[in-house]
Amino acid sequence: MPYSLLKGKKGLIFGALNDQSIAWKIAERAHEEGASIVLSNTAVAMRMGSVDELAAKCNSLVIPADATNVEDIENLMKQTMEHFGGKIDFILHSIGMSPNVRKGFTYDDLDYPNYHKTLDISAMSFHKILQVSRRLDSINEWGSIVALSYIAAQRTLYGYNDMADAKALLESIARSFGYIYGREKKIRINTVSQSPTPTTAGSGVMGFGGLLDFSERMSPLGNATAEECADYCITLFSDLTKKVTMQNLFNDGGFSSMGMSRSAMEVYNRNLDDCIDCK
Amino acid sequence: MPYSLLKGKKGLIFGALNDQSIAWKIAERAHEEGASIVLSNTAVAMRMGSVDELAAKCNSLVIPADATNVEDIENLMKQTMEHFGGKIDFILHSIGMSPNVRKGFTYDDLDYPNYHKTLDISAMSFHKILQVSRRLDSINEWGSIVALSYIAAQRTLYGYNDMADAKALLESIARSFGYIYGREKKIRINTVSQSPTPTTAGSGVMGFGGLLDFSERMSPLGNATAEECADYCITLFSDLTKKVTMQNLFNDGGFSSMGMSRSAMEVYNRNLDDCIDCK
Amino acid sequence: MPYSLLKGKKGLIFGALNDQSIAWKIAERAHEEGASIVLSNTAVAMRMGSVDELAAKCNSLVIPADATNVEDIENLMKQTMEHFGGKIDFILHSIGMSPNVRKGFTYDDLDYPNYHKTLDISAMSFHKILQVSRRLDSINEWGSIVALSYIAAQRTLYGYNDMADAKALLESIARSFGYIYGREKKIRINTVSQSPTPTTAGSGVMGFGGLLDFSERMSPLGNATAEECADYCITLFSDLTKKVTMQNLFNDGGFSSMGMSRSAMEVYNRNLDDCIDCK
Amino acid sequence: MPYSLLKGKKGLIFGALNDQSIAWKIAERAHEEGASIVLSNTAVAMRMGSVDELAAKCNSLVIPADATNVEDIENLMKQTMEHFGGKIDFILHSIGMSPNVRKGFTYDDLDYPNYHKTLDISAMSFHKILQVSRRLDSINEWGSIVALSYIAAQRTLYGYNDMADAKALLESIARSFGYIYGREKKIRINTVSQSPTPTTAGSGVMGFGGLLDFSERMSPLGNATAEECADYCITLFSDLTKKVTMQNLFNDGGFSSMGMSRSAMEVYNRNLDDCIDCK
Repeated sequence: MPYSLLKGKKGLIFGALNDQSIAWKIAERAHEEGASIVLSNTAVAMRMGSVDELAAKCNSLVIPADATNVEDIENLMKQTMEHFGGKIDFILHSIGMSPNVRKGFTYDDLDYPNYHKTLDISAMSFHKILQVSRRLDSINEWGSIVALSYIAAQRTLYGYNDMADAKALLESIARSFGYIYGREKKIRINTVSQSPTPTTAGSGVMGFGGLLDFSERMSPLGNATAEECADYCITLFSDLTKKVTMQNLFNDGGFSSMGMSRSAMEVYNRNLDDCIDCK
Repeated sequence: MPYSLLKGKKGLIFGALNDQSIAWKIAERAHEEGASIVLSNTAVAMRMGSVDELAAKCNSLVIPADATNVEDIENLMKQTMEHFGGKIDFILHSIGMSPNVRKGFTYDDLDYPNYHKTLDISAMSFHKILQVSRRLDSINEWGSIVALSYIAAQRTLYGYNDMADAKALLESIARSFGYIYGREKKIRINTVSQSPTPTTAGSGVMGFGGLLDFSERMSPLGNATAEECADYCITLFSDLTKKVTMQNLFNDGGFSSMGMSRSAMEVYNRNLDDCIDCK
Repeated sequence: MPYSLLKGKKGLIFGALNDQSIAWKIAERAHEEGASIVLSNTAVAMRMGSVDELAAKCNSLVIPADATNVEDIENLMKQTMEHFGGKIDFILHSIGMSPNVRKGFTYDDLDYPNYHKTLDISAMSFHKILQVSRRLDSINEWGSIVALSYIAAQRTLYGYNDMADAKALLESIARSFGYIYGREKKIRINTVSQSPTPTTAGSGVMGFGGLLDFSERMSPLGNATAEECADYCITLFSDLTKKVTMQNLFNDGGFSSMGMSRSAMEVYNRNLDDCIDCK
Repeated sequence: MPYSLLKGKKGLIFGALNDQSIAWKIAERAHEEGASIVLSNTAVAMRMGSVDELAAKCNSLVIPADATNVEDIENLMKQTMEHFGGKIDFILHSIGMSPNVRKGFTYDDLDYPNYHKTLDISAMSFHKILQVSRRLDSINEWGSIVALSYIAAQRTLYGYNDMADAKALLESIARSFGYIYGREKKIRINTVSQSPTPTTAGSGVMGFGGLLDFSERMSPLGNATAEECADYCITLFSDLTKKVTMQNLFNDGGFSSMGMSRSAMEVYNRNLDDCIDCK
């Protein structure tokens, strides 16, 4: 590495907060592979995080935008194209937040305005980005779009709350819009379903300790790191995956295809005998 | 038939509009199988449709409620339990509507307030019903809950629009809440993914003519009718399916497991040769 | 119960060995629901087990047959139709055995003649039964055929060995033949993917202790018992599920839709702390 | 292109017959990307095809081997390692043949010795390659193994016959062995589920004309070509996909996520009108 896989390509990356962020790693790797990058995040996230540091490293422009706000996205797209002097080749959507999780509303006690916000921020924002892109014709033919997802879209994980529903919606949007953007512009849209990753967002969302270890032991190759997710996304942005679309692609060390591993079972069995009061 | 499969059970059925409705057929069959029924729909739907006729036939109470309105659902649940003199054994959710479809907004030109409404009416209403039920403890242990879905949740069908996303969300809610209601109360929650059915809602949602025929020919057993869906739901409400939960169950004559049938291929191939200008 | 759901129906049940067998429970329940039953198993299994006791209870005929032997199946089908004075309405396939498992060959050290036998006994036998049935026209229109499967067909479970491959093949056969038998005779073919069940076969196949407990705690409704599997199969043999075909149907208390439950995580975490040397 | 993605890597490629073969394209691309290649096929295929031409182009060694024969595979592996002076980094399995298809036995009239051969050639050969590799420790850590599959493993396509079952078995083997090889050696195993491709094998297997067109119109990006499959496999052999394992990855222009496209529906509907006698 690097291989110049994205040489001459222009990418727009949503969701880099700090150097724990998967989006951050993707931006770094895309830059290494020869892409020009525009970074975007909310104004608040930009203050909280350290995206300017990333921008300096990658020689990129940072444009604040609320991805739930169509007008913001329009401005962002226009500025991005102006900055690039042309259309965009790839987009990364790494945006997710649940006010219900933040404020401690469990899934059987959801606050409904919050629920709408979870869906709006974490999933409908993806539709908005796509719809605005299409209207402004801001993506090149054979462009590639990736959104980050999680296996909670298919299987229930204790504590993941309404983010599971948001990820299911996100993956549906990828399919629905993938059909339209595919037939019209040869643009592909996929989601990458990543191992649980100790980012700022990830750690907040779930009861993370045990789950991370369980996931590590269940996955024959172990959990995929943020760096490994970045590598994978590079291949999806490259010209080598032109006919892969409308897919949810697991980057998870094999977790999604496991029912039970010996390694996880060893931990589980170890004290099962004296676990009389567990229920 | 009948078999007294639901003898002594009490059911709440959402979404019967007229005698084309799947919910209507389910209410009829549940009644035949010995269940007591409460019917609910919006006030508007009740005026448009003929639910009173069904109520008379099934000796049921009709209670208007907007399933997106938590207060309405609370009132409905309380009245239902009062009417039954006890808790509910099964619930059918057959509610779906897309203002975007109605008003001609295509999927690449969605109106976002409408999109929220599509999701709220067609999917989040299911969560609201479940959350209110749980709070009021209105469902008996080993109760059974079914929501009607469609394969658009997994695969994109031209013209199904944001209802595809709503169905994906609906199925996710079934899983997410199925976990909670299962471990606490042994209540199971499933979705039935039904063949395209020429109901008032169905016919409106999609470009129905060709799709219905294609689906019929692709399905080795042909499309499942509303009556056949009713029969299937009866088994899911009965005591014979107590450990089936968090599943999406296809009642579709085999469509979901088909890639291409001889019968559909015959139609397709017929004039392919002179279809020079098709694209 | 009972409901006379199978009144007047005639069924052929493969694989009842003793009163732990799922097939045994299904035969009992089918009999209770009004069906006439023919039981079949290998000559060896009939000596080892107690199928005569079941036959007495259900007033059924027992016909020995090796389900991997086409001639045996032909004789069985002819005798069964003669006994019934007509065609068969439903068939249960509950046959599985891995000589590799029995003889201690692990999956990375398979004996290939054994591997062929595992597939032949546990999966191709299903095709043979179907092909012979079709050739002899021994199943009534709208008949229903079920084979028992396990989630190892989709996800790898430590120790399940080549039975995982056999179950994947079995489920594929259900789809492939389901298409043919559906379009020609309206006969439906499904697999039921059952919770791990402490039968003679089940207990032998896997490292059963911990897995059973893990599965119990991961499943919101707990593992499905053999009796509950029997109840579910009754619905699939009944006239209430006529358009359900080519499906793999999970009867597993929700296990297949779970990523991690609180209850399983409690055991897992408990042990994790002092599990310094686990790897 | 090229990017030197496989610089210094050593690969073993099964199944290149002639310049229509997907394996041929993969060998060419792998060579372009800097890999050293050993080619293998049966002696018969080597006589029928033109693999020597490919070998000359890619500066590779050709070693005949029957992939159903363990001894042949052992010799092949040893010669390959000797040739490379070290272990292998990636393997491609592109082997499939159904004597039933060849000899005109339909799926409802299978010849069972042929059925065993279909499975042995098209699926169990993959297990044999893996088992021998593991025994001889012939693959480097973080190696990558890919087998080519088809969506018939999930959905029934008229005419694909027992190859559907073989592909289901193949994908199961990828998962089952992927777990073992993953935890032990960090080696990943995936299948690529490719669009129907007009290779010598592909054209023989199915009623190809109409299906290819239908698939083309159903897929938003159109069918993936053999060249595009090669590009995709390069990413899977590269170091950029290290944590992707036990997956079935669709390279199909979106076909697998489509229920019905406008383009296919246009052809279908056009014909439907004057298709009075179709059944």
